[in-house]
Amino acid sequence: MKFQGPKGTRDFFPPEMAWRRYLEDAWRRVSVRNGFEEVEGPIFEPLDLYRVKSGEGIVSELFHFEDRGGRELAIRPEFTPTLARMVADKAASLPRPIKWFCMPNLCRAEKPQRGRLREFLQWNIDMLGIAEPIADAEVIFTCIDLMRELGLTAEHVKVKISHRDTVHQILARLGVADDKMLEAFDLLDRREKIEPDQFNKEAAKLGMDEFKVERFTQMCRRKYPAGDVPHLARSVGLERIEDLEKLDVQLQALGIADWCEYDLGIVRGLAYYTGTVFEAHEISGAERALAGGGRYDRLIKLMGGPDMPAVGFGMGDVVLSLVLQDKALAPSDVMPTVDAFVLAASDTARPTVGSIVAQLRSAGLHARMSYRSTTNIGKLLKEADACKARFAVICDDQTTNAQTVAVKNLASQDQQAIALSKLVAHLRHA
Amino acid sequence: MKFQGPKGTRDFFPPEMAWRRYLEDAWRRVSVRNGFEEVEGPIFEPLDLYRVKSGEGIVSELFHFEDRGGRELAIRPEFTPTLARMVADKAASLPRPIKWFCMPNLCRAEKPQRGRLREFLQWNIDMLGIAEPIADAEVIFTCIDLMRELGLTAEHVKVKISHRDTVHQILARLGVADDKMLEAFDLLDRREKIEPDQFNKEAAKLGMDEFKVERFTQMCRRKYPAGDVPHLARSVGLERIEDLEKLDVQLQALGIADWCEYDLGIVRGLAYYTGTVFEAHEISGAERALAGGGRYDRLIKLMGGPDMPAVGFGMGDVVLSLVLQDKALAPSDVMPTVDAFVLAASDTARPTVGSIVAQLRSAGLHARMSYRSTTNIGKLLKEADACKARFAVICDDQTTNAQTVAVKNLASQDQQAIALSKLVAHLRHA
Repeated sequence: MKFQGPKGTRDFFPPEMAWRRYLEDAWRRVSVRNGFEEVEGPIFEPLDLYRVKSGEGIVSELFHFEDRGGRELAIRPEFTPTLARMVADKAASLPRPIKWFCMPNLCRAEKPQRGRLREFLQWNIDMLGIAEPIADAEVIFTCIDLMRELGLTAEHVKVKISHRDTVHQILARLGVADDKMLEAFDLLDRREKIEPDQFNKEAAKLGMDEFKVERFTQMCRRKYPAGDVPHLARSVGLERIEDLEKLDVQLQALGIADWCEYDLGIVRGLAYYTGTVFEAHEISGAERALAGGGRYDRLIKLMGGPDMPAVGFGMGDVVLSLVLQDKALAPSDVMPTVDAFVLAASDTARPTVGSIVAQLRSAGLHARMSYRSTTNIGKLLKEADACKARFAVICDDQTTNAQTVAVKNLASQDQQAIALSKLVAHLRHA
Repeated sequence: MKFQGPKGTRDFFPPEMAWRRYLEDAWRRVSVRNGFEEVEGPIFEPLDLYRVKSGEGIVSELFHFEDRGGRELAIRPEFTPTLARMVADKAASLPRPIKWFCMPNLCRAEKPQRGRLREFLQWNIDMLGIAEPIADAEVIFTCIDLMRELGLTAEHVKVKISHRDTVHQILARLGVADDKMLEAFDLLDRREKIEPDQFNKEAAKLGMDEFKVERFTQMCRRKYPAGDVPHLARSVGLERIEDLEKLDVQLQALGIADWCEYDLGIVRGLAYYTGTVFEAHEISGAERALAGGGRYDRLIKLMGGPDMPAVGFGMGDVVLSLVLQDKALAPSDVMPTVDAFVLAASDTARPTVGSIVAQLRSAGLHARMSYRSTTNIGKLLKEADACKARFAVICDDQTTNAQTVAVKNLASQDQQAIALSKLVAHLRHA
């Protein structure tokens, strides 16, 4: 009987896991230096937590089940509801601003496709308690800082920014009533995924005739570089766009204006966004978004917490990996370095191998040995090379007689005798 | 509407998460230096994977569900079945020996109690392809290396070792038939959890009268230090115990004999163990086992792979944390260091704060700033102290005029003027 892993999930063998750790280490390093503190939550939550945030429709997209007490539970499809629950629970005692990151595995019961799996990792960056655009800008900076850390540049990726209020004003001028606004956002977010006929029919119901839809589509086609908000305002027929103006100042102060552009086509369907929304895209548009997020000032209250402004984003590992591979930015070797491969060149020396390996490891060095019964030094050195060890530590009769080993630098092929008592220091500083 | 996290799960706020990372970092560091390579698998697996390994009885202990295609899936309660599936799948192409570690989150649908939660972390160490006791000893060494790394000593913890074959020989001499042997192991493993009457009734069914049960219980009560296998053999009335003799040589070679003792009472109920079994226990016996494992030479074949010897163990985070706290071995501060807190001492200097913070972060330094509108230097320095920053970087009119900042060492209170162009180098080497 042979088993396969579930559809849309991944087995991480050592090379794939080393790649995953490479990404996770970068996520953590960048999060920490940007002042975010790590959190985590349960892999499953009450199903109602997702119903409250996203409506009954979400249930069919979740893996859900009951425990023996009949409680409805679901594997988490995103981290934000858990974060909101945690903040709501402890809001009174948490120092402000709350700057949190996490790197959860998330599951969605959907059909696997390129860039979208049933289980994936997602880096989450969230900043709560600051209503001013400095928080939006800092969150966007952190996203860009990560991409820079992995070798991406403003030539590879653009962060496309829009604002719910700006789009709201435009849609209102185009005839969408206030009570239809959320539906309009949802429709606009789906416009690439549905047939034009269907789109126009739904748009008409929301008060937008074909001319107005075309007018909006035109607006979405044009991009405006950061620094050029006045031009954007004129072009959409608004006098000023204050929110984006303030954000613009911050993006320039943080030195990331060259990565950013304003793109009214970035709508993001999720009902809970309230202000800035943004997505990071590979510049050719070949892949799904690398990251997406925005401001969600009403969610904490919805989850039973205080009124608390919030802004954040999520970045999955799948699209990020595809983009890095495509740009040849994936390092060829991300496996940990082997410091020493200890081997016995004679039968009398064999019993010492284990004890030397044990001593090196306890001293913090990554030491390996052969499990074969051979003392053929050529074969053993080949094994040492195969695991890319920095040094071979050769035990022979001198080891038993004079308490020395021969240490061979496997890059330079230099070899010298080292007293056992100085082996750790030698390997550590060589 | 306010939500609570599911029963038996944990929310990791920043201090709890920093502690979790402290453990995970130690697990990873020790795994890598012992030559193990990291792997991971899906959070859920086909339910049948667990049925095949553990029987139908396991189903009630799992969180299980169906996907939309009607496939039966379960959240993983342990990692070994996933590991066996992965090895069986790729056995032909994997270099031997296979030395893998992972640190999965696991879920069990059982009643939460001290040291046992519904979701927990477990460090897994597994070595496959080596039938000789060096593998058993190396796996036990890695377990001890971790405990040493965290400050535990042989005065705090004992690794209690037994062997299925030894116990098999003893039980056979006491009258247990070969076909009742697995049931006997299971019964002995449960002997602390069930009433003596019940135990004796079940033992009788397996061919052990009260006298024989008492004889076995006596044997289990005595412990034998590593190095003393001949004494153990005599005491249980066996001429030799070859398997333990060979293991004993290796434990001594690796220098961990003082941590180990033989204890025939360590049975481990799981049917899949085939040779050495062991558990690490806090010495007073106050908590559940810190770690448990053993040899499982038949599992890979059962999962559709080749015949492949295997030995490994699991160590959960819950009991480990309890023991470290109890021994006062939990470091008081495991949060990441803040390198610099950047602040503006005047209104004209305020716009530079963000850009300096951005530059420091891009250079890899952990930099923070205030989000308050004050330029009161006393209040801002208090904020810098509160996040335990190493340095305060003070922007004032000199910053705009002369491109310098005042850098204050918050431990020594020394302050000096530093050119902006030299700030990164100064903070990095100070």
